[in-house]
Amino acid sequence: MSFKTKLGIVAALIALPQMGLAQDAAAAPDFNEIGPYIMTTLLFCMAGFLVFFMAAGFAMLEGGLVRSKNVTMQMTKNIALYSIAAIIYWLVGFNLMYPGEFNGYVGSFFVPTVLDPVGVAAADAALDYASIGSDFFFQLVFVAATASIVSGALAERIKLWPFLIFVIVLTGFMYPISGSWKWGAGWLDAAGFQDFAGSTVVHSVGGWAALAGAIILGPRLGKFGKDGRVHPMPGSNLALATLGTFILWLGWFGFNGGSQLAMGTVGDVSDVSRIFANTNMAAAAGAVTALILSQIMYKKPDLTMVLNGALAGLVSITAEPLAPSLFGALWIGAVGGVIVVVTVPMLDKFQIDDVVGAIPVHLFAGIWGTIAVVFYNSDANLMTQLLGIIAYGAFTFIASLIVWVILKATLGIRVSEEAEIQGLDMAELGMEAYPEFSKG
Amino acid sequence: MSFKTKLGIVAALIALPQMGLAQDAAAAPDFNEIGPYIMTTLLFCMAGFLVFFMAAGFAMLEGGLVRSKNVTMQMTKNIALYSIAAIIYWLVGFNLMYPGEFNGYVGSFFVPTVLDPVGVAAADAALDYASIGSDFFFQLVFVAATASIVSGALAERIKLWPFLIFVIVLTGFMYPISGSWKWGAGWLDAAGFQDFAGSTVVHSVGGWAALAGAIILGPRLGKFGKDGRVHPMPGSNLALATLGTFILWLGWFGFNGGSQLAMGTVGDVSDVSRIFANTNMAAAAGAVTALILSQIMYKKPDLTMVLNGALAGLVSITAEPLAPSLFGALWIGAVGGVIVVVTVPMLDKFQIDDVVGAIPVHLFAGIWGTIAVVFYNSDANLMTQLLGIIAYGAFTFIASLIVWVILKATLGIRVSEEAEIQGLDMAELGMEAYPEFSKG
Amino acid sequence: MSFKTKLGIVAALIALPQMGLAQDAAAAPDFNEIGPYIMTTLLFCMAGFLVFFMAAGFAMLEGGLVRSKNVTMQMTKNIALYSIAAIIYWLVGFNLMYPGEFNGYVGSFFVPTVLDPVGVAAADAALDYASIGSDFFFQLVFVAATASIVSGALAERIKLWPFLIFVIVLTGFMYPISGSWKWGAGWLDAAGFQDFAGSTVVHSVGGWAALAGAIILGPRLGKFGKDGRVHPMPGSNLALATLGTFILWLGWFGFNGGSQLAMGTVGDVSDVSRIFANTNMAAAAGAVTALILSQIMYKKPDLTMVLNGALAGLVSITAEPLAPSLFGALWIGAVGGVIVVVTVPMLDKFQIDDVVGAIPVHLFAGIWGTIAVVFYNSDANLMTQLLGIIAYGAFTFIASLIVWVILKATLGIRVSEEAEIQGLDMAELGMEAYPEFSKG
Repeated sequence: MSFKTKLGIVAALIALPQMGLAQDAAAAPDFNEIGPYIMTTLLFCMAGFLVFFMAAGFAMLEGGLVRSKNVTMQMTKNIALYSIAAIIYWLVGFNLMYPGEFNGYVGSFFVPTVLDPVGVAAADAALDYASIGSDFFFQLVFVAATASIVSGALAERIKLWPFLIFVIVLTGFMYPISGSWKWGAGWLDAAGFQDFAGSTVVHSVGGWAALAGAIILGPRLGKFGKDGRVHPMPGSNLALATLGTFILWLGWFGFNGGSQLAMGTVGDVSDVSRIFANTNMAAAAGAVTALILSQIMYKKPDLTMVLNGALAGLVSITAEPLAPSLFGALWIGAVGGVIVVVTVPMLDKFQIDDVVGAIPVHLFAGIWGTIAVVFYNSDANLMTQLLGIIAYGAFTFIASLIVWVILKATLGIRVSEEAEIQGLDMAELGMEAYPEFSKG
Repeated sequence: MSFKTKLGIVAALIALPQMGLAQDAAAAPDFNEIGPYIMTTLLFCMAGFLVFFMAAGFAMLEGGLVRSKNVTMQMTKNIALYSIAAIIYWLVGFNLMYPGEFNGYVGSFFVPTVLDPVGVAAADAALDYASIGSDFFFQLVFVAATASIVSGALAERIKLWPFLIFVIVLTGFMYPISGSWKWGAGWLDAAGFQDFAGSTVVHSVGGWAALAGAIILGPRLGKFGKDGRVHPMPGSNLALATLGTFILWLGWFGFNGGSQLAMGTVGDVSDVSRIFANTNMAAAAGAVTALILSQIMYKKPDLTMVLNGALAGLVSITAEPLAPSLFGALWIGAVGGVIVVVTVPMLDKFQIDDVVGAIPVHLFAGIWGTIAVVFYNSDANLMTQLLGIIAYGAFTFIASLIVWVILKATLGIRVSEEAEIQGLDMAELGMEAYPEFSKG
Repeated sequence: MSFKTKLGIVAALIALPQMGLAQDAAAAPDFNEIGPYIMTTLLFCMAGFLVFFMAAGFAMLEGGLVRSKNVTMQMTKNIALYSIAAIIYWLVGFNLMYPGEFNGYVGSFFVPTVLDPVGVAAADAALDYASIGSDFFFQLVFVAATASIVSGALAERIKLWPFLIFVIVLTGFMYPISGSWKWGAGWLDAAGFQDFAGSTVVHSVGGWAALAGAIILGPRLGKFGKDGRVHPMPGSNLALATLGTFILWLGWFGFNGGSQLAMGTVGDVSDVSRIFANTNMAAAAGAVTALILSQIMYKKPDLTMVLNGALAGLVSITAEPLAPSLFGALWIGAVGGVIVVVTVPMLDKFQIDDVVGAIPVHLFAGIWGTIAVVFYNSDANLMTQLLGIIAYGAFTFIASLIVWVILKATLGIRVSEEAEIQGLDMAELGMEAYPEFSKG
């Protein structure tokens, strides 16, 4: 029944009274056998479209936090990186990350993913998991998040094409290779490292890649004065940045909830809902903490801190969104909020220019979240969590450094001073995002 | 199988050919028993994330309808109120609203909600309802809507922290207490009061709280001239306001559809879809009616009326989105659209300054929707509906008045004249939403 | 259990220990019989809300690509057209498109759709399909897409009310009549024409209607100089346009995935996930292709081309999102991206002014997608596909021409020169979208 048309429906409805349902019921497999597969496949589809939408969230967040002269470029980077990640992950990444799974190719490079056949029979499907298409789609939307983190940190000065080449390396090779250590049943998984939905595997990996890039690329012109003073460069559209944050928060229900990887039993679907409740709580706690702390530290609440506080709360709970109680999610997320407010100025001291605060949110809160697993998941221990954090950090940071250095030495990664001052939109793309709104 | 990793999946897949499916099938509970629980839990998760996203809808709608000098503040209020509501509802509200339910605490104050254990067994789950996590999450996202209504009406002049204190009282105490009258199986429920998804319990409650606040707070400077003339203060970003309306409309499918509270039978899932169709129809009818009526009354179609017309249609159908025919939804929603166009100027006559039209949309259309239940739901009668409307109105309006008066007398609720003229963004937060777009 | 209240839940929970589950289980129908109906109804609800949200996507895309003086009008048109389509499709379209289905009226005009009764019993439901409400809702949200295509192409110069009258004719009559040829089991379906989710039935139909309108309406003032030179009129908000594209991409998972029309078997749910993966791949390929091609052709990447490339990829895969492999989706979508980059300037040569590129995206890529079916679906043959393309094109283009000519001769369809120069927002609506952002 893979290619059902309305005609078929009409025919079936007309035939219905005559033939009854007996025949259909006889032919149909038992729901006790197929129900979990259907539900888990649905989970991946649903969680997948939510995580997909995070691409829009990142674009809006970053587009709102850059200056208006760089908004078209930020939009271009974000839709391009998602699209490139989608292609390269199919071509290389998925089979590299999950060797031996599904299609028999073991860790092959350049063996594109192959889906279940159309209208796959129950006997040929992975009945205790989900369809390959749904699993692939769900894993695919994760990888783009990693690249989006980098695009935010390096905004307003990096060249488009070298950045996109980095995206290919990150999403096609670096992320899948390190990802397989845990989620591909690799050595860190065997060692007992715990990372439910990717505080480390996704978020800190993106953060490390961004940190390496920010160091090699250098800060924006004028960001740090010779006297060491930091010159704020306010985002051009905080309504857009807020929208982006809400979209990311929405997508995170899929990010964490879908990582349950099953929805067909009472325990699994209840766990998915537990994860929803905990994820929401951690985000709320991160936001409120950042709100209060920015009031205390700066005497004025800081919206960008609140937005990043919510995101840091989300990153913090991502390594273990299931086991904690709601109170656990609250304080784990709250610590994430503290981390953001404290470390954003710290990066400035080191003259590392992270345009949107991606490194505090995804790297620092990601490390925190990975450590926090030990408080609620008895399968985790601190040493193994630290081992995982270090392994992912060392690999991603060093590999990223190498790629950035090579790109810098060959294509160059930074636009000219003139282009940076003029703005990347006119200099590189010849197209302003807001051509009619005169600049104040 | 609560903490399933990819490793487990791989192992299972490898083992699959050897062991067959028989063993799994034997161990699995019967889908006839667990199916409805799984589907209803999924309904709450899905409807919950849709209703969550309404927080973004309110933020965009309100951010688009205030002047640009107050947009950062409006964003801050909206993300803060959602986050605070999420915490306080866990800490107090949920158990206050649903006493005796789930965890044995009867109406306790400050007894935080406790979720099902990880991987809850079928035998320990509420098999004829849903998981606690999903129910809690679904109820939680509702409460923030109430507070968002208030933030819109009182925009551009209220201080941040006193507003947030009001949010705590509203979402932690007032809403749960009055909510329990109906949805916590309280006296109004026993009396036969009908309010399917909260035209009264959520929307008019938010509207009453907003009305009390608007009266105590007073209108914006310059809104009403000494000669009684109304000075329009146009919203700064109607694209954003339109986006917010569409997001709210989207979220409303979850708001009303999820309020079916069940999706595991033919009747229930069909009812959910009936509710989707009716909800959509009422919104469409409200929008079209406001479009036509604004053309007739003002000779020019008014987009803000159309947006509020759609929302009023949605509020109107919320008390009974199931029983009406599509034609019923049409005319109930259309009356909502009429109410908005007629009552927005009426509020101006009373010099009540409701920045976004929240009181017409949520209070007046909410009352209408609650009355309209009697036309299609034979369990409802007009007297009981009016009793409910009056009870919710009296309690919320008086309690809100008291809280606003106390806040005014202590912390003060209104920013200084200078701050209001300068805009709350620079005066209170030191951060503009659109720092580069010069003001015309 | 159609009108379940919390009270009922509480009562059931209290009663639970006493009565056990045996009674419920005895009364409940067999999940093997009702499971597919529940899942497919859920599919339509879920896919339906995703496709609904495409209305927001179109509004943001178009609002971002018009000049700021026409944004309020574009928002008004988009929310109005969705609302009008929702009403007229209920009143006329659905029963016209699916004659004989569900309620016994054969092709009747003005016989509004009637839903399943509240709490429909399993015995009275279309157990091998889905609830009427869900099917109606899903079909309904499709029709608005057709009209949105027209609103984009004709932006910045068409009068509101004549446009909305065209929307009534298009969504109430033209689209349902031609739609029934394929999806209503009509002559093209009988002939073997294949169009899974509507590259032709929806997208090229919208494109033909837009093309007819663009010809009758003429280009915007100043768009084409007397010397034949094209004067670019850049969109006012590319962040908004990008958001719109992402929202449309999100909605397309529902558009194509829901068109599987079933989710209750292993084969169907796997197919839905296949469609998700293919749809995503085609969009990504369209975006990347347009990025590279615009770099090559214009030396600078063009964000609007990338956005339209993604959309063209989506339109291209819509006629057959199931059968192709991921590689098939890749190249089919990539050709869509090529089509956009090549045909956008081509339209300019013919002095056809399509403000947002709707005709290349929806008409040209729609035709391509319909042809591409033959490569992967063995039920399709080129001649029949071409027959379908020509039949839909001839009917829609001619019928649209007639309606546009009548509207032009009676009400007039174009605003005055003064109004066009001033902008439709102030001239027609008296309300600017961005009143505070001074124009550069």
